[in-house]
Amino acid sequence: MINEVNYRVLYGDTDCGKVMYYGNYLRLFEIGRTELIRSAGISYREIEEKKGIILPVVEVFAKYKASAKYDEILTIKTLLKELKPYKIVFEYKIFKDHQLLTEGYTVHVPINKEGKIVRFPEDLYQLLASLLKK
Amino acid sequence: MINEVNYRVLYGDTDCGKVMYYGNYLRLFEIGRTELIRSAGISYREIEEKKGIILPVVEVFAKYKASAKYDEILTIKTLLKELKPYKIVFEYKIFKDHQLLTEGYTVHVPINKEGKIVRFPEDLYQLLASLLKK
Amino acid sequence: MINEVNYRVLYGDTDCGKVMYYGNYLRLFEIGRTELIRSAGISYREIEEKKGIILPVVEVFAKYKASAKYDEILTIKTLLKELKPYKIVFEYKIFKDHQLLTEGYTVHVPINKEGKIVRFPEDLYQLLASLLKK
Amino acid sequence: MINEVNYRVLYGDTDCGKVMYYGNYLRLFEIGRTELIRSAGISYREIEEKKGIILPVVEVFAKYKASAKYDEILTIKTLLKELKPYKIVFEYKIFKDHQLLTEGYTVHVPINKEGKIVRFPEDLYQLLASLLKK
Repeated sequence: MINEVNYRVLYGDTDCGKVMYYGNYLRLFEIGRTELIRSAGISYREIEEKKGIILPVVEVFAKYKASAKYDEILTIKTLLKELKPYKIVFEYKIFKDHQLLTEGYTVHVPINKEGKIVRFPEDLYQLLASLLKK
Repeated sequence: MINEVNYRVLYGDTDCGKVMYYGNYLRLFEIGRTELIRSAGISYREIEEKKGIILPVVEVFAKYKASAKYDEILTIKTLLKELKPYKIVFEYKIFKDHQLLTEGYTVHVPINKEGKIVRFPEDLYQLLASLLKK
Repeated sequence: MINEVNYRVLYGDTDCGKVMYYGNYLRLFEIGRTELIRSAGISYREIEEKKGIILPVVEVFAKYKASAKYDEILTIKTLLKELKPYKIVFEYKIFKDHQLLTEGYTVHVPINKEGKIVRFPEDLYQLLASLLKK
Repeated sequence: MINEVNYRVLYGDTDCGKVMYYGNYLRLFEIGRTELIRSAGISYREIEEKKGIILPVVEVFAKYKASAKYDEILTIKTLLKELKPYKIVFEYKIFKDHQLLTEGYTVHVPINKEGKIVRFPEDLYQLLASLLKK
């Protein structure tokens, strides 16, 4: 399943090179995975509050192919690339119309409130696994 | 007492107008008041952790007179403008060399961990009051 | 005319106080005025590119009454408060449901590409003036 | 040559997980490479303005091992990992005291003002190459 969400570039997202600052794409990645998770029927906030599981980013990669400019509408396409008992990987592609601007991924591990790595609770794992289907 | 701290403008602070984004000056205000408080012999982190007092911003004002550009070194000058049992006001002036770029203030109220407005504890009040002296 | 636009709070908008960082509301103000201007039939990008007019912020004020938290959906309500030949003032109110969280204003002056303050071109002035009507 | 620069974590850098937001580390990477380049005797701003060369990020990778918290002083250690006629790679390690929190790299390509990839000018190449020495 691919989640699509649009984002309009703010003045505050750009830098003096007149394009979106490279670090700000990681906010778009956050928007992408948040909305993908929501489409599985649970919000990330609920994962933290109700399941007691936090999913910190342990790795991020991004490849910048073309620039996003002020006021352009981008499309963030996100999919669940990999799901393991102790690991979840999201993949992102950011488009302007049909042009791929940026692609990347984030790796997360489930930890509990004490900061210890734990297995995904079974019900949460099944919900997330539903995102692997088409 | 006036605290002075320097700050070099990042690419990530600027916007496509080629100057520092107006919202990012509020980060500089934070740097200014944090270092001013530290000069009183307590850090803002200690105020939260040891005194149980949080000082949220309830008002901010900024006046932009001239622009800060990429890689410029700015000087943030901060002073304690007003201290009352239930209120604290910081004033900021941001300079490039001797040119005043931006000035403003923030108003904060002391709240406890439950989010209730409280009087400053006496010892903290005295520490902060020392910043009113020259 | 009041423009309304929704915004969902990102992890990246919040701070370790568990609420939206005070500086990030200025991004929401930007979203608000950008969409209000667009509703007048011209985008801010077009004002810069086609009219050669830039509208830098010369003053900002914000009053924080209650906090915005992660994943909450906010409503940004923006109106044109004042329009003069050399000045434009936008007013913002940010709500969560019916609760007013933050209100504020920004003052802008029209400058040309050389950075000189100029009168609004007549056609642009008329477009913006249409926002003063109900 | 390794450049070291300290950075104190702001409230505005953290998120509601009470640690530095993952995207904000890319600002620290920027600080690191900017100061490393400056130690070669030229600033990145001068590379843009005097050499007409821009060095956009085409790839970024970061691995997060431990969290940075509010008010902590971090050390950003940056080195030039690779220098080719059409490519430059910086490597970053961010420490709190002796604990490695985050490591990563950025890949940049030299482009001219028209956005075309070009070889590094010879004098600039030699300056940057000096960073490869111990």
